[in-house]
Amino acid sequence: MEMKLPGQEGFEASSAPTNVSAGELDSDVGPGPSPGPGPSPDGPSATESKELGVPKDPLLFIQLNELLGWPQALEWRETGRWVLFEEKLEVAAGRWSAPHVPTLALPSLQKLRSLLAEGLVLLDCPAQSLLELVEQVTTVESLSPELRGQLQALLLQRPQHYNQTTGTRPCWGSTHPRKASDDEEAPLREQCQNPLRQKLPPGAEAGTVLAGELGFLAQPLGAFVRLRDPVVLGSLAEVSLPSRFFCLLLGPPMLGKGYHEMARAAAVLLSDPQFQWSVRRASNLHDVLAALDAFLEEVTVLPPGRWDPTARIPPPKCLHKRLPSQQRESKGPAVPCLTSAENRHGHDPHAPSPELQRTGRLFGGLFQDVRRKAPWYPSDFLDALHLQCFSAVLYIYLATVTNAITFGGLLGDATDGAQGVMESFLGTAVAGAAFCLMAGQPLTILSSTGPVLVFERLLFSFSRDYSLDYLPFRLWVGIWVATFCLVLVATEASVLVRYFTRFTEEGFCALISLIFIYDAVNKMLNLTHTYPIQKPGSSAYGCLCQYPGPAGNESQWTTTSPKDRDDILSMVRRGLSDFSSVLAILLGCGLDAFLGLATPKLMVPREFKPTLPGRGWLVSPFGANHWWWSVAAALPALLLSILIFMDQQITAVILNRVEYRLKKGAGFHLDLFCVALLMLLTSALGLPWYVSATVISLAHMDSLRRESRACAPGELPNFLGIREQRLTGLVVFILTGVSIFLAPVLKFIPMPVLYGIFLYMGVAALSSIQFTKRVKLLLMPAKHQPDLLLLRHVPLTRVHLFTAIQLACLGLLWIIKSTPAAIIFPLMLLGLVGVRKALERVFSPQELLWLDELMPEEDRSIPEKGLESEHSFSGNDSEDSELMYQPKAPEINISVN
Amino acid sequence: MEMKLPGQEGFEASSAPTNVSAGELDSDVGPGPSPGPGPSPDGPSATESKELGVPKDPLLFIQLNELLGWPQALEWRETGRWVLFEEKLEVAAGRWSAPHVPTLALPSLQKLRSLLAEGLVLLDCPAQSLLELVEQVTTVESLSPELRGQLQALLLQRPQHYNQTTGTRPCWGSTHPRKASDDEEAPLREQCQNPLRQKLPPGAEAGTVLAGELGFLAQPLGAFVRLRDPVVLGSLAEVSLPSRFFCLLLGPPMLGKGYHEMARAAAVLLSDPQFQWSVRRASNLHDVLAALDAFLEEVTVLPPGRWDPTARIPPPKCLHKRLPSQQRESKGPAVPCLTSAENRHGHDPHAPSPELQRTGRLFGGLFQDVRRKAPWYPSDFLDALHLQCFSAVLYIYLATVTNAITFGGLLGDATDGAQGVMESFLGTAVAGAAFCLMAGQPLTILSSTGPVLVFERLLFSFSRDYSLDYLPFRLWVGIWVATFCLVLVATEASVLVRYFTRFTEEGFCALISLIFIYDAVNKMLNLTHTYPIQKPGSSAYGCLCQYPGPAGNESQWTTTSPKDRDDILSMVRRGLSDFSSVLAILLGCGLDAFLGLATPKLMVPREFKPTLPGRGWLVSPFGANHWWWSVAAALPALLLSILIFMDQQITAVILNRVEYRLKKGAGFHLDLFCVALLMLLTSALGLPWYVSATVISLAHMDSLRRESRACAPGELPNFLGIREQRLTGLVVFILTGVSIFLAPVLKFIPMPVLYGIFLYMGVAALSSIQFTKRVKLLLMPAKHQPDLLLLRHVPLTRVHLFTAIQLACLGLLWIIKSTPAAIIFPLMLLGLVGVRKALERVFSPQELLWLDELMPEEDRSIPEKGLESEHSFSGNDSEDSELMYQPKAPEINISVN
Repeated sequence: MEMKLPGQEGFEASSAPTNVSAGELDSDVGPGPSPGPGPSPDGPSATESKELGVPKDPLLFIQLNELLGWPQALEWRETGRWVLFEEKLEVAAGRWSAPHVPTLALPSLQKLRSLLAEGLVLLDCPAQSLLELVEQVTTVESLSPELRGQLQALLLQRPQHYNQTTGTRPCWGSTHPRKASDDEEAPLREQCQNPLRQKLPPGAEAGTVLAGELGFLAQPLGAFVRLRDPVVLGSLAEVSLPSRFFCLLLGPPMLGKGYHEMARAAAVLLSDPQFQWSVRRASNLHDVLAALDAFLEEVTVLPPGRWDPTARIPPPKCLHKRLPSQQRESKGPAVPCLTSAENRHGHDPHAPSPELQRTGRLFGGLFQDVRRKAPWYPSDFLDALHLQCFSAVLYIYLATVTNAITFGGLLGDATDGAQGVMESFLGTAVAGAAFCLMAGQPLTILSSTGPVLVFERLLFSFSRDYSLDYLPFRLWVGIWVATFCLVLVATEASVLVRYFTRFTEEGFCALISLIFIYDAVNKMLNLTHTYPIQKPGSSAYGCLCQYPGPAGNESQWTTTSPKDRDDILSMVRRGLSDFSSVLAILLGCGLDAFLGLATPKLMVPREFKPTLPGRGWLVSPFGANHWWWSVAAALPALLLSILIFMDQQITAVILNRVEYRLKKGAGFHLDLFCVALLMLLTSALGLPWYVSATVISLAHMDSLRRESRACAPGELPNFLGIREQRLTGLVVFILTGVSIFLAPVLKFIPMPVLYGIFLYMGVAALSSIQFTKRVKLLLMPAKHQPDLLLLRHVPLTRVHLFTAIQLACLGLLWIIKSTPAAIIFPLMLLGLVGVRKALERVFSPQELLWLDELMPEEDRSIPEKGLESEHSFSGNDSEDSELMYQPKAPEINISVN
Repeated sequence: MEMKLPGQEGFEASSAPTNVSAGELDSDVGPGPSPGPGPSPDGPSATESKELGVPKDPLLFIQLNELLGWPQALEWRETGRWVLFEEKLEVAAGRWSAPHVPTLALPSLQKLRSLLAEGLVLLDCPAQSLLELVEQVTTVESLSPELRGQLQALLLQRPQHYNQTTGTRPCWGSTHPRKASDDEEAPLREQCQNPLRQKLPPGAEAGTVLAGELGFLAQPLGAFVRLRDPVVLGSLAEVSLPSRFFCLLLGPPMLGKGYHEMARAAAVLLSDPQFQWSVRRASNLHDVLAALDAFLEEVTVLPPGRWDPTARIPPPKCLHKRLPSQQRESKGPAVPCLTSAENRHGHDPHAPSPELQRTGRLFGGLFQDVRRKAPWYPSDFLDALHLQCFSAVLYIYLATVTNAITFGGLLGDATDGAQGVMESFLGTAVAGAAFCLMAGQPLTILSSTGPVLVFERLLFSFSRDYSLDYLPFRLWVGIWVATFCLVLVATEASVLVRYFTRFTEEGFCALISLIFIYDAVNKMLNLTHTYPIQKPGSSAYGCLCQYPGPAGNESQWTTTSPKDRDDILSMVRRGLSDFSSVLAILLGCGLDAFLGLATPKLMVPREFKPTLPGRGWLVSPFGANHWWWSVAAALPALLLSILIFMDQQITAVILNRVEYRLKKGAGFHLDLFCVALLMLLTSALGLPWYVSATVISLAHMDSLRRESRACAPGELPNFLGIREQRLTGLVVFILTGVSIFLAPVLKFIPMPVLYGIFLYMGVAALSSIQFTKRVKLLLMPAKHQPDLLLLRHVPLTRVHLFTAIQLACLGLLWIIKSTPAAIIFPLMLLGLVGVRKALERVFSPQELLWLDELMPEEDRSIPEKGLESEHSFSGNDSEDSELMYQPKAPEINISVN
């Protein structure tokens, strides 16, 4: 029951069931349930070792020690190091450079090859100490006994490491050459204290390259050693790791920086996973040279003079898995970071994920959902024990309460006081908490959504037109909706969500986001009506009165801060970034209090009773209505059912995307079942109706992201998954319930700050979807468009056409939502799927694959040659044509319920 | 007398006396008076051709046509093209990719080499048409006559180019294979209309690579042809350029994309200046292969799996000149973009520029200045005939008028009405116009600067304390200052400006910028006193009154817009960006007028008479003062002279920096002479004193930048220089004079908009100096610091120490300026130079070279080995240690007077 601090989860990765092991540093940045073989190539024994479950090769830390100071004061100095990327010591500045992609000169690789070919290659050397190793390495014929002694003494000399712990200047001056002694094999204290040690996973090994000019040598001396049993070779490496590889490159002075560059080449070779893999298994010189040649086959060459050689290429965001050379030759598909289909529906695009497989039995999907989720139930509470969850609760609580307040107010307006803020609070608390306890996807935050509210408004005006008793009529609508939803659960209708492609999701998401943004801005503008801008000539002439909008500004600021801030300090910083939203809110409240602004504050009802005076909490089944209205209620209920189904399931599809790496699985049927039950409950109590809210749920997930600390220098933190648990949601809704009694505290929160939260969520959601990127493309001249993979494969006019169709759909939905025709809004939502289906006649499957994704039938109907025709046509985009999207870490797009 | 439109100066470069020729596309992005040999290497005849003044090799446009559609529908299609960078055709998307640095696979280069080695190499082929060329190329033994005919027909088939002019879809479908005919050698209409044609300089040649799989060939066929006389080969290339090179790579189908990659390798080789140079002069196959090997020697190798292969490396900001391989071998210094010393004082750091060479004769420097500037005098007016100058006039006029108003107001306060806005206007107009007509550096904008104003305030309170008649006393101070300045001119004291290093300049510039920012913010805050924030409880409860600050916001927006906007549209866009400041001002005025805000407006005096009632324009020489006060005035005059000298010359040094590529030279002595004369005039008329204003002058220069249109795809626009002329300044000051009568028009300009201009100038100036970057470093953890070259060579603590000393100096100056001790401010400015001198004891010459630059003596005192010791020490930063600064286009830093 240990409470972890944020950022303390360094190697949690290796034990997580997502198959992300820390040793796999270089291969698994891209998300995907099956990480693949990673660095182990398809060599002779790769499959064997993979299948036998043999552990991966350990990570290798490579260090370059150079012999400097010839001829007066010879000494070894560390000048570079490699794990995934290169860090070089800026000698004059006394610091390590930023990690960067190493660049080599081709001749140095070739020189290294010939030096190794003529030199000494010891594989499985049994040396147990540096002394033994040095003795073995120096037993070459070309050396006279005298020279051999000199060389041995030199090699045993303690190298000077740049020590990060002691300060900013290299600590070289303090140590002196010494002779070999008995205790030399023990690692030094500073080696063990090296902060780099903590960044390397357990089991990491070291490789050391020693290089330099040595005047007394008549000819170059090259040696490559693989130790049979890795041992700590005294202070050879700056970190106290057991050494596996040892490479010696010495020789008479030559022009240029020959040995330095050769040594860098050797180090880069050793840091290459493919070469490392081969050389760990090499049995003779020939194997080593073959591995080097294989490396050369795969290098990328940059022509001289066409780029800035002083520039250091920063580590890429995504490291691609490499193809074994054979496979590459045979034009096989590259292993992409993640394909479109994988991105969405699991690993194999042709097979729906198990949650969406039809069982064929009545309620079969529901039972399977329960069976799948039940084992996780205890962990759903234990996994919440992390400080991050506390921050998430605060953030989501505020969003939920704001939502309850605003929608409660709107509901009161819409139903003429038949329901109101109190119902909204109570309903949110009860429905939300119940859902968190029962649902298949407990990360979901229930909320009264915009479309449902619009529907309720229409229902109320209908019942008023026919002089109906609203709440009893509404109860029957609820009963019918629940019935229809149960039918949908029984018939496993949720498997149809596979037809919700990116087109539908993004259309819906954009609509909801726009509603949120519109509402936030609208409310702020409404405030300026209460406090209008006073122009000259009015009573307060010369005094410009503008309602301050701190929340809006802050939120914009928050939009970028969570990422930026991640880059400033380590422990404190992470804690701050976890609480960034909360801090922004507190800042807003503080500013408001400090300036003593007359802003409207969060007003919570002070008494626990229904908004409509005189009614009890339980709605009577008929009231003043004729009995047959309870049957007639089925018709609006049908429309509402469609709306609920669409709203609930699109959100569920978005939440359960494979890139979020949810381990505990989805529960589409179970979720709908819960929604149906809650429909009954809320109708009976006269509370608002609830479905999953896209925005807040995604904000909830986003606040629960788990990321590894970066292990190797230059490596980006891995996204490990989401803290899937039921507790944060539950606590949020319990707090919401308690808020009914918290009016004295909450009254300090200005409404504009809360509108800012909504604005932020809306903007964040809108800016994260591909649709928005494509809308921007509409306004951009081709020359200045970003290099999206999409644009490499679909003609611009086709992209624009697709975007325009989406925009038209969005406009239509917006118009319908805003007019009396809103009653058919649910059907129009369903229409989105139809429009998408019709697009198959306008766009080719290839285009849809890039712009959207394929619908289930298309998936199967696309012929292999269909996809390949483009290739054979172009013949020149082998590098990227198999990659579906620009590789990226999974970004959670926060959209609005 | 043709009025050029902005952006119309495409190849003006080639005729400009700055030696920037358009053919030199790849070598001369960095500024510098002597552009060096560029792409021509130190090969056997390079020096020869250079010395003989033989024209440079023409630019080469390379196109790749691939044979696709085997076996059914063979056709040639263009799939890639190269000038400096690679553009590939996105076949599916039907567009050219963004230009990027080409990357090659090493094996493809090697395969190309062996294919060429076995293939046909025709150098100086006399073919005059495609037909002749094809006949020559196909005369290889391995081909049967039948195959030869087939091959010839295929090669004569018209290739399908992606035609940009016809729309977004490739126009391939429309043309059909045809047989060789007589008119085939004539370029097609679309070839001539190709927009790319206009981007290539006159004399450009084409190279075509033809490649593909051809089933009926039994073995690969490689041919490389250099045409003796370049001719347009029909529609072979997409642009109607004469072809010089022709490369054919055909063969039986092989695995992978062998021919495509080989062909890309050939194209990249041809686009390499060094290879191109060699192959233009090659006399046999051996030479060609040697050139290829030399290319391989110089390539940079990126290891596989450590970077994202789908990423395209964007063109670098600065292309480094390449070292000939011999020189590189011998560890000679690389040719950097620009060294520190070059950056400042001309080409050779050890020899001062001619303007700053002491003649040893009385007034020798002055006479030389006059002699040097006189020939340019007519062009100083003709060169102003450009629309850009019109925009510059508007912008600088507004800045000058604002300056005149604000400083006039301050002056009125400081001198109790002895002078005021009217004097400020008149003085600015008279002194400014006179200076523009006479000065050595007519781009300078004179202004009453902050330090001078502070001095005047002190002088006034002194004269009040001693009950002196202020203006007559001030007249004598002016006479003495003029005398001292003339002595400084006579003794050629201006050559001492060589001691003004970056340390002094940036200290002064930062101070002045801060004064501007402080003043702008201060004035805005003062306005809130007039219109205070009303809090609840005040008379207008619930109404928050904030003075709107549109100017500040706009200015921030303008800060980035000139660069961003350059990237949107072409003709219109450039026009807009030229007027961005004016547009921002107009927008501010429009918003103010639209909202009817009660802002204070620019108030210009309506009557032309001195501020002090009752005095005439001419100051009486003694007034009520004792005659000996005229002698005593020499003491304050001494201090003022130092101030004037420092203020004037630091500004002059900044303005005449070599990176601005001024062609007409500086006139340090002449400028000081003019300032001295104007000192007399303004003192006699009771007008403010004037010196060069750093900020406005730099803003002036910035608004007169000349940039080439980018020629090759991916190339950044070249900075060509400044429109050096006297007219803009002159017009600005004439307008300022006229403004005295323009009160009815100017009253629509709100003061906050004008403060915004000052804020913008101050912020822009402050953000452009290295000092600011270093101050930011103080606040940044080492891990997140940018990869500045400076930081690669100087330990962070030393950088921080240097910054801290500069900050302390700045703080001291600020304090002195703000206290009664301000009288010694001029001495403190001089003290900056002393502090810098003292820093030589704290920092090593190497460190100062990176942090600052060297003073004249140091320059000579630095031993070669001193600079090299670091290298021999580190042994591993060959790539960058000779480069002084991060390469960049010259940025004009706008600071405040």
